[in-house]
Amino acid sequence: MPPIRHTDNPIIKPSDVVPSRSDFEVVCVFNAGVARLGEEVILLLRVAERPRGSRADRHDAPIYNPQTGEVEVKSFHASMPGCDFSDSRFFRTPEGTYLTSLSHFRVARSRDGIRFDIPEQPSLFPANEYEEFGIEDPRVTKIGDTFYIVYAAVSRMGITGYMASTKDFVAFERHGVIFHPTNKDIAIFPEKINGKYYALHRPSPVFLGKKDIWLAESPDLHAWGNHRHLIGRAVDGWDSGHVGGSAVPFRTEQGWLEIYHGVDSNQEYSLGALLLDLEEPWRVLARSKNPIMKPEASYEKEGFFGNVVFTCGVLVEDGVVKLYYGASDTYIAYAELSLDEILESLV
Amino acid sequence: MPPIRHTDNPIIKPSDVVPSRSDFEVVCVFNAGVARLGEEVILLLRVAERPRGSRADRHDAPIYNPQTGEVEVKSFHASMPGCDFSDSRFFRTPEGTYLTSLSHFRVARSRDGIRFDIPEQPSLFPANEYEEFGIEDPRVTKIGDTFYIVYAAVSRMGITGYMASTKDFVAFERHGVIFHPTNKDIAIFPEKINGKYYALHRPSPVFLGKKDIWLAESPDLHAWGNHRHLIGRAVDGWDSGHVGGSAVPFRTEQGWLEIYHGVDSNQEYSLGALLLDLEEPWRVLARSKNPIMKPEASYEKEGFFGNVVFTCGVLVEDGVVKLYYGASDTYIAYAELSLDEILESLV
Repeated sequence: MPPIRHTDNPIIKPSDVVPSRSDFEVVCVFNAGVARLGEEVILLLRVAERPRGSRADRHDAPIYNPQTGEVEVKSFHASMPGCDFSDSRFFRTPEGTYLTSLSHFRVARSRDGIRFDIPEQPSLFPANEYEEFGIEDPRVTKIGDTFYIVYAAVSRMGITGYMASTKDFVAFERHGVIFHPTNKDIAIFPEKINGKYYALHRPSPVFLGKKDIWLAESPDLHAWGNHRHLIGRAVDGWDSGHVGGSAVPFRTEQGWLEIYHGVDSNQEYSLGALLLDLEEPWRVLARSKNPIMKPEASYEKEGFFGNVVFTCGVLVEDGVVKLYYGASDTYIAYAELSLDEILESLV
Repeated sequence: MPPIRHTDNPIIKPSDVVPSRSDFEVVCVFNAGVARLGEEVILLLRVAERPRGSRADRHDAPIYNPQTGEVEVKSFHASMPGCDFSDSRFFRTPEGTYLTSLSHFRVARSRDGIRFDIPEQPSLFPANEYEEFGIEDPRVTKIGDTFYIVYAAVSRMGITGYMASTKDFVAFERHGVIFHPTNKDIAIFPEKINGKYYALHRPSPVFLGKKDIWLAESPDLHAWGNHRHLIGRAVDGWDSGHVGGSAVPFRTEQGWLEIYHGVDSNQEYSLGALLLDLEEPWRVLARSKNPIMKPEASYEKEGFFGNVVFTCGVLVEDGVVKLYYGASDTYIAYAELSLDEILESLV
């Protein structure tokens, strides 16, 4: 059975989000961290903003300045020599690479899991030198009564894995860079395994190596080591371009289930499943030959960066995988999948 | 006063090292880890070997196979389309990048610090899937009665930071990958600072970021976190290409002294000094405007990869910095520098 997409999809659109300042516009709301807090579903939304009123002859990069605490806009003329403005997400100039938008997080809350209240102001905003180009793609893992949030902190120094925590999604504490550049798609397992914490992560190596999924372990969630290579891209098919962890892994009777993303040779982002041994999570038991979800709906095929379904988290309740996902790097959408059917597809 | 190079330089040459097998030749012996063990000076030599009898029409890559435990040679014809054979250290093919030599370590011992006994067999040889392209550039840090060795483990999965340890340089224990790819030039500080271990490391980021020096901390030497950016390349001069840690840092009254390497725009590798706060080693107190040593002698300018002086460790005894260094990626050489003069140069 294919994923059941909600009839109200996309459930959150950029126009549903008030920009953090009047001269900016929200261009994307996507790739949300997911948690249940009592009766509420929490989405930690990634909100991407840029200066309002784009001009064809100008390319703007909104940048957080940690010295002043303000967001400043750096502008480049479209005719500037030595620049590449071909990608909607970033551009290259002789003095460096810049992002076209600046991302922050907002805590959206819902009772029914579909209609969300979105605050008018950011909940977590860039706040230090590692975050000057934004904070992106949060994964939320509940351990005890604390929610640990790992996100990509982006700056001219690189893309790092940064950790924050909260107990209530009102007050947040930052804990620093836990994975050095270049790393993305970090998801901490929700419980210790034989006395150690584990996390999936996705380095982007140079010279040798590919964008593969690795596993790390930690005594304390802050320091990570014993890195082990888990899976690389497939020889062909939906995940033959590169791979990365996506949702926070969750326990099933058969093993840890990870919903990961794969990219094919046409830059289409789909989702598949990975089954890891419960006691020795570095042992890969099974992996999707076919994606469990791929871009099919119009909102998944067209947007800021089209042909993308991407998740940072799911809720698993009553045998249903409740998938909150970014569509076309523009929207939040919702779909339900049967946990049993995912597991059966891995046999 | 410039460095005083030893009159016997280079003190170790490839012809001084017996190859590990009769059909291989030693092409380089360089970038050694350094330790004092009782009356002896220990050099953990990086020895690079390749198949004997190179042919103009063929390029060979010696590769350790972790399944068989054997080294196998992969050959590519010089006329193969889509290849780049222009660098002496590696070549690129449509199926991947390969190194032209395979490195292992040997424990060389000396009473006078100049004339070394070199064993005929490897002391530490590639032994797992992370090391199939070799083990390189060891840094040795003594903590208590244990010597911790961190080296670059190179494979098709990337360049990682791998840790081993020994008490006697006879028996070694491996501890796994402590820094995920891409990372190099990892050097652990010789003592805890306010209850935590610290290490310098040098990620090679993609998309955003440069080859800069970072600092990490650890509760146990195995897991590393709280990564902080320390220094980047200079605007111009000897270290304006990129930088990386080199020697294991050592304590002085003024601060932690790190001898790091810098590369200029002509790919010339020189050495400079970095002074870090004793209590808060993420605070940079001073940095060399001019190199403390640059390639000048013939053996530093010509070799497998010329115009390189590079160190993985020093001994600091009686105010003298005894520098063991790799010259032209081919030889081990020795020079002495005055610690006071290095510190004065940083004012």
